[in-house]
Amino acid sequence: MNEFELIKNYFQQLAKKSLCSLNLNDDVFFDKKNRLVISVDTYVEGNHFIDFKKPDLVIKKIIRSSISDLICKGVKPKYYFISGSGNKKSFSKSNLLKISKSLNDEQNKYKIFLSGGDTVFSNKLSFTITSIGFANNIIYRNKAKVNDDIYVSGNLGDSYLGLLVLKKKIKLNSSLNKYFINQYFMPNIQLQLVNHINKFANTAIDISDGLLTDLDKMLNTQQLSYKLHLKDIPISHNLKKVLALKNLPKVNYISRGDDYQVLFTASKGKKSIIKKIASNYGIKLTKIGSILKVDKKPLILDHKNREISIKNKGYFHQF
Amino acid sequence: MNEFELIKNYFQQLAKKSLCSLNLNDDVFFDKKNRLVISVDTYVEGNHFIDFKKPDLVIKKIIRSSISDLICKGVKPKYYFISGSGNKKSFSKSNLLKISKSLNDEQNKYKIFLSGGDTVFSNKLSFTITSIGFANNIIYRNKAKVNDDIYVSGNLGDSYLGLLVLKKKIKLNSSLNKYFINQYFMPNIQLQLVNHINKFANTAIDISDGLLTDLDKMLNTQQLSYKLHLKDIPISHNLKKVLALKNLPKVNYISRGDDYQVLFTASKGKKSIIKKIASNYGIKLTKIGSILKVDKKPLILDHKNREISIKNKGYFHQF
Repeated sequence: MNEFELIKNYFQQLAKKSLCSLNLNDDVFFDKKNRLVISVDTYVEGNHFIDFKKPDLVIKKIIRSSISDLICKGVKPKYYFISGSGNKKSFSKSNLLKISKSLNDEQNKYKIFLSGGDTVFSNKLSFTITSIGFANNIIYRNKAKVNDDIYVSGNLGDSYLGLLVLKKKIKLNSSLNKYFINQYFMPNIQLQLVNHINKFANTAIDISDGLLTDLDKMLNTQQLSYKLHLKDIPISHNLKKVLALKNLPKVNYISRGDDYQVLFTASKGKKSIIKKIASNYGIKLTKIGSILKVDKKPLILDHKNREISIKNKGYFHQF
Repeated sequence: MNEFELIKNYFQQLAKKSLCSLNLNDDVFFDKKNRLVISVDTYVEGNHFIDFKKPDLVIKKIIRSSISDLICKGVKPKYYFISGSGNKKSFSKSNLLKISKSLNDEQNKYKIFLSGGDTVFSNKLSFTITSIGFANNIIYRNKAKVNDDIYVSGNLGDSYLGLLVLKKKIKLNSSLNKYFINQYFMPNIQLQLVNHINKFANTAIDISDGLLTDLDKMLNTQQLSYKLHLKDIPISHNLKKVLALKNLPKVNYISRGDDYQVLFTASKGKKSIIKKIASNYGIKLTKIGSILKVDKKPLILDHKNREISIKNKGYFHQF
């Protein structure tokens, strides 16, 4: 059973349709009357982060992952709650100092602050982050239109390379190691987008599970298809270098998740405003494909417009 | 290090004082400008609940525990988020059905609804509940006044007896067993109080860790003391029966926690309105003592006004 089936079979009927317009099937909950936007996510050691050897970096990663849910909806995160379950070792004085310092760094960077939380004893380390923002409206999932362009912010794949480095599944020089590990723990989330995305996006999601998995999620109840151009999918200079050096196919590195970039669609007429905003505010926004009618099959095309088959579309939570 | 020290040493400075008036030292976070009241709590198997053999009952207990934080502040809970971490066994189809049904029961009973959440894989079972309400004002901790009467809602101690039954540390007949186990899993939280408590209470807290521990928490930054009359502390007819039958001292059974009753103080002049509201709405509210100046020592008095010493004041979370 995947998480969609789980929600649909057991929890959907508990939501109040009139108020909970997102119906449990979105990154956030939006209470329009009270302008309240909430994201709740749990991060477990060994699953969402490898271990807790670098508490300062793990904390940065999970805070960014949490507020990324709000950012992709065009909502400025305002404050957050952190609930930690762990043992004495995880919450030693030295680790608590690192956690506190990291939270402080993130608070200054993203203009958010701690509102509360909970610390409980458990042999398994996990954190639940509740992030709160306020907005008159948000950008929903399932609002793409046929012929929309598909865009993504920033670069994809760096975080996955960082994971491979951390798991010792790839060997690079120390400067590249450091670069990718930093991208894994501290993704360049796009706070600036919150002030502009509502000017052009029809629908949006943040990429946590992988480009293709999240593209499917963004369109999930819609009868739509898509085509993507592999050559247009933005990757960093460093990732290009590694792919060339190791002779690795790009297609295997762009949909592995943990990117926390914003995936969105926009009508073709929005092309110039998107270009302008990207340039004025220094936000990298790249057109990577378009939305098709459902009678077309989803396609990923190479530089010669040939179809590419892709094995791993990203991460699916299974129970 | 207890939870107060943990908050004070590592997290207090991350809260925004101007907005977060409760400063992490209360049951809830209150954003007055947005009228938003939030409680976040994590419940771990083996700590907050013994095991998951009765998923339906565990779910009821943790939902009530969570909304109890709002109720004691005079805030009606409106919706909630539930994040579960667990393995395939904990989240089997049969358990998910029970969880879903229990949530539905609680939703109908307390007029709340599910807004979202998260389910992640972990070998250790835990739940984080985020409960949300809206209010123009709330009843804070640390607002007791010298000579205030101290009150408690409902009865204390039944839940602890239930725990002893579940842990096989006390033997009772099957009807008493059932009664106390039900009280342990389904405490009679006082939703009705939210509409009235702001008419009389100066300060309030819900009793989760134990009467005396939570009384200390309610007054924690205040230079105040108290006296309690043991004979006035309300216990159920069934608990009275067990204490008499087994020749157990009442004092050892009234501050063990998990009661989820509301502890509050009120000026002496509020006595008649408290009596009236209690009677009109069928809410049991009992005066159990009074607030003293700090130069007096905290006292628990027996029926002859002799001082009683008490070993176990309740539960303190330690790291």
